[in-house]
Amino acid sequence: MTYCVAIRPDAGLVFLADSRTNAGVDQVSTFRKLTLFERPGERVLVLMTAGNLALSQEVCSLLTEGVSDTEKLWGAPNMHEAARCVGEAVREVFRREASALQAHDVGFNLSILLGGQIGHERCRLFQIYSAGNFIEASDETVYFQIGEAKYGKPILDRLVHRKLSLDETAKCALLSMDSTLRSNISVGLPLDLLVYEANSLRVDRFACITEDNRYFQSLRASWGERLCEIVREAPAPAWTDPLSPDTPAPAGLTHEPLRAVPTGHAEPSLQGVQTLAESKVARSPE
Amino acid sequence: MTYCVAIRPDAGLVFLADSRTNAGVDQVSTFRKLTLFERPGERVLVLMTAGNLALSQEVCSLLTEGVSDTEKLWGAPNMHEAARCVGEAVREVFRREASALQAHDVGFNLSILLGGQIGHERCRLFQIYSAGNFIEASDETVYFQIGEAKYGKPILDRLVHRKLSLDETAKCALLSMDSTLRSNISVGLPLDLLVYEANSLRVDRFACITEDNRYFQSLRASWGERLCEIVREAPAPAWTDPLSPDTPAPAGLTHEPLRAVPTGHAEPSLQGVQTLAESKVARSPE
Repeated sequence: MTYCVAIRPDAGLVFLADSRTNAGVDQVSTFRKLTLFERPGERVLVLMTAGNLALSQEVCSLLTEGVSDTEKLWGAPNMHEAARCVGEAVREVFRREASALQAHDVGFNLSILLGGQIGHERCRLFQIYSAGNFIEASDETVYFQIGEAKYGKPILDRLVHRKLSLDETAKCALLSMDSTLRSNISVGLPLDLLVYEANSLRVDRFACITEDNRYFQSLRASWGERLCEIVREAPAPAWTDPLSPDTPAPAGLTHEPLRAVPTGHAEPSLQGVQTLAESKVARSPE
Repeated sequence: MTYCVAIRPDAGLVFLADSRTNAGVDQVSTFRKLTLFERPGERVLVLMTAGNLALSQEVCSLLTEGVSDTEKLWGAPNMHEAARCVGEAVREVFRREASALQAHDVGFNLSILLGGQIGHERCRLFQIYSAGNFIEASDETVYFQIGEAKYGKPILDRLVHRKLSLDETAKCALLSMDSTLRSNISVGLPLDLLVYEANSLRVDRFACITEDNRYFQSLRASWGERLCEIVREAPAPAWTDPLSPDTPAPAGLTHEPLRAVPTGHAEPSLQGVQTLAESKVARSPE
């Protein structure tokens, strides 16, 4: 499995990829999933892949060694053309491989993120699907994920927006990765972290993060401690009697669970069941 | 879709279920997924279901109105027998329904959580699969989830353990639900929250939580603010030159991204790429 996330705040682009691949639990390897296409001063393109590794590698290979120069990422005049170029490479790989894979009941499983900047155009970020079609991130939706995306999504939904600084964005990406690493053993270190500053047209911030990386260690540890602190410090539910007049039941509902009643028995009474004291909590200080 | 979570700290049991069902995005309804079997002073059993609603309802119905009394949850002498009883009801529903569903390409999709306490036995929590087999929560793994579980799992993996109080456990369950609600629109309010105190053998804390519930509103808001605060306050990555002697590259790796090199070009130089200053971060105060 894989987890890759790319975020596009106004300040630039942040890319983070894990490096674990697995075919079953006993065939685990390390492969880097982030590939950089850089011509300093002219273009920076970052490609991240998830899915079948043979397919991913074939796409990368086509993109760097393709026959005609205009088919390659090196020649794309803008980011939209670069994304189209990646989509075409995906379709070419589909033509070559899909039917042979199908004979072995292996699906054509491949998803790609492409972000970067070419010349004077703005920074752009695309997600390319296995059919070769693609979508672009917008000011409202500034991130894309591929691979094992669900565990790391709530953090991004809560925290990420276009006004974050690049450092804050990198922290969010690392925390999203941390959630994924904790909950799914098929995602693993080392991580490739690449931070691109808009209009620099060169990469000057990159880290390969292993278990020994003290920055990531300290970020994970302080995150865990602070989360526990929030839970401890959040006000406890204030339970009260639902029959008391200051706790109205929600419209159309009661503060009673759905009960299974043994055949031939009367409905049990509400008496004594406590519920959340809504008005009390509203009056209490935060 | 559905999200249900049940947690078994030493202090008792906490159950939380959403109430949204959907068949496509334009057929959304509210159905409660938590059913209480309570005979005060003798047994409290809580059943939560996810999957095909017709199947869930049929299982619940069999369990409350089953033919012979010993087949019902009301008669089970202990929690293990109660779980077996639920598993048997699932298998009976499978015998009745699976082949007809298969004719319409509908899978037998059903998963169940059962927790509670019977007489002098300890509190126990089970997850029952669609094959009718089941597993029990342990002191090391104190929670189970069914339905749309991934978004809410990282929070639980970080925060939940057997020594939490019931109030803290309820907060963790609500925050796990909050993550799920934010990231998946097929999970929705109102929520059924039931907190059971070990050895009480009666339910005295239950809430049906709607959008208007001020406790849940304040918990969600303060959670969001505090998360942003953590990200702001966490130390920023300290970027430095990877060629400087105090930033060793990880063994077998470099602080260089995997680069696509245009055919016929020399490898680009490392010069000027900054990476995370590991030793600097280690020396800085937390």
